[in-house]
Amino acid sequence: MLAPVEKLLKDFDAGTTFALARAVSIVENQRPGVDDILASMHPRLGKARRIGITGPPGAGKSTITNLLTREFRNAGLTVGIVCVDPTSPFTGGALLGDRVRMESIALDDGVFIRSMATRGSLGGLASTTREVADVLDGFGYDRVIIETVGVGQSELDVARTADSTVVVLVPESGDSIQTLKAGVMEIADIFVVNKADRPGADRLRNDVELMLGLRRGASYGNMPAHHGVDLKRAMNPARAAREDAKLESPDKWTPPVLSSIAAKGEGIKEIAESLDRHFGYLERSGELRQRRRERMVERVVEVVEKRMRQRILDADTVAWVKGRVDELESGSVTPYVVADDLLKKFGHLVTGATK
Amino acid sequence: MLAPVEKLLKDFDAGTTFALARAVSIVENQRPGVDDILASMHPRLGKARRIGITGPPGAGKSTITNLLTREFRNAGLTVGIVCVDPTSPFTGGALLGDRVRMESIALDDGVFIRSMATRGSLGGLASTTREVADVLDGFGYDRVIIETVGVGQSELDVARTADSTVVVLVPESGDSIQTLKAGVMEIADIFVVNKADRPGADRLRNDVELMLGLRRGASYGNMPAHHGVDLKRAMNPARAAREDAKLESPDKWTPPVLSSIAAKGEGIKEIAESLDRHFGYLERSGELRQRRRERMVERVVEVVEKRMRQRILDADTVAWVKGRVDELESGSVTPYVVADDLLKKFGHLVTGATK
Repeated sequence: MLAPVEKLLKDFDAGTTFALARAVSIVENQRPGVDDILASMHPRLGKARRIGITGPPGAGKSTITNLLTREFRNAGLTVGIVCVDPTSPFTGGALLGDRVRMESIALDDGVFIRSMATRGSLGGLASTTREVADVLDGFGYDRVIIETVGVGQSELDVARTADSTVVVLVPESGDSIQTLKAGVMEIADIFVVNKADRPGADRLRNDVELMLGLRRGASYGNMPAHHGVDLKRAMNPARAAREDAKLESPDKWTPPVLSSIAAKGEGIKEIAESLDRHFGYLERSGELRQRRRERMVERVVEVVEKRMRQRILDADTVAWVKGRVDELESGSVTPYVVADDLLKKFGHLVTGATK
Repeated sequence: MLAPVEKLLKDFDAGTTFALARAVSIVENQRPGVDDILASMHPRLGKARRIGITGPPGAGKSTITNLLTREFRNAGLTVGIVCVDPTSPFTGGALLGDRVRMESIALDDGVFIRSMATRGSLGGLASTTREVADVLDGFGYDRVIIETVGVGQSELDVARTADSTVVVLVPESGDSIQTLKAGVMEIADIFVVNKADRPGADRLRNDVELMLGLRRGASYGNMPAHHGVDLKRAMNPARAAREDAKLESPDKWTPPVLSSIAAKGEGIKEIAESLDRHFGYLERSGELRQRRRERMVERVVEVVEKRMRQRILDADTVAWVKGRVDELESGSVTPYVVADDLLKKFGHLVTGATK
């Protein structure tokens, strides 16, 4: 183990924010020491509840993250935030404008914010984000919020690393709910229709609920309840209570469809409450433990892939491939043949044997 | 080798479009037979010129691709098109609207179009796109156009697999040229300012030229020429010719900044001509050969990574990891220890040895 990393981890254990920031940077950029830091995090993991916030650009994710953070702070909880932006090479500047943080949380000692403008992250965006979340968890934050800005598959992959995922939608986010692909429905534990005072909000909420009903194979008449402003629920509290009980049955979770007007601070408390309910469900049903165990297996697989690359694909083997490029160019061998030859010749190194 | 793949490759050799479409599908979805197909492509590669078309959403990439294709067809060339859409889970529907093809090219026997709506492509988006381009090249198309829709790092990675990359910009694509990240400047062989009749087009062109000048460390007065509508060039053809000669010096290429109004079909011929000039430069300077040799080395590395995963990370080893999840959960071992143990135990399989 590198001496500087030992020192860093000592400061980290002492709760120095500076050491945390350095550890996060090392992990984010996969610099030397990353493996030692992550290995030392492992036994400390599991305290933080990891919350993913995702949705299309302009949905109000940052505002909701800010207000949720304030809500958690008011409850005496510390919060680590990873803001993931799979930066567009074309619109990067514009997206950054979206990330202005409220001073109240940016200057709060109980809050740590790291924006990852990861372009072509070495270990893969989702993998690196999870590792940064591990560091925040290991440092002792009660809540770790993973907010994804931008669009794409990577967003879904990132969301999958959270315990609870909030999908934020807005009425103008698409011509219809048809634009919500299956992947989004699968990762959402809580839906939030933000800017709920805009035209189309009710229709969007109905569409999402219908889709949830369809997903469960239920009929139109068996639409799941939502916890936002709902006249029917307000008029029939007994039925609403029954519905909630069903929602919270230990072996089943139906994503609620909440409403918010984040710009006015409305609906945030309900999101926090829903997150508590979801975490309660995860614990009671055993799904939390199962999800976390699955993630540990995935983590081992990731480390195996990384190790194999580190041990096989170094300057020596690449030079060896380059020595065969004339053959490749002439067409006398294919990349498959050269790859197989390489693994025959250097494959034993993968076991950790020295050269 | 699987018998159905042998049959498929026979039909492929006979020039059956149906066999081509099947081969592309197998490669796109990394289905069984993919390795045999790609290995058999290898000796046939290199005929096609690969052209990448990239830029922000709404820049007119599809229109330019359509018109360029028509231009190539008029010159008697066949064209294969791979349209890559790193589908947004949120806006997928909207982007698809952008992809309506002109009937004239969609119904042309000399044109093959494949849209890859790849979400979470198994082998990585850039890698799979290159493989599909290999199949089109192997089939004998004279030009292979790789058009990327959407935004993100994957776009840059995809563009890097082309021989010549056209970056399409529009006046409204950003508040300023500052939004063009370094990565874009590096991959662009030709810039096109589309919708050149809109306000801001001249400024955008100037900004790009200035940036190119800065990149080469030249002063403001040494701005590169562009091949679009340019009054100064038109007034001084001798100087323009000198500039062109400089642009086409065998060891240096300065990306021209062209203008187009694709919706009216204006400026397309100039793009085609610039592509010819760039390819001529690539050939004369030896850069084409060098780029293609580098890509072969990268290709071997990709195959090595794929093979290592196939040989090590199968159901048996994952089951073995799962058998250690209690230890991981208790914190008595870290994922790093388990990964190292796994490679000690199963690493020899990577050489291709049988279990």
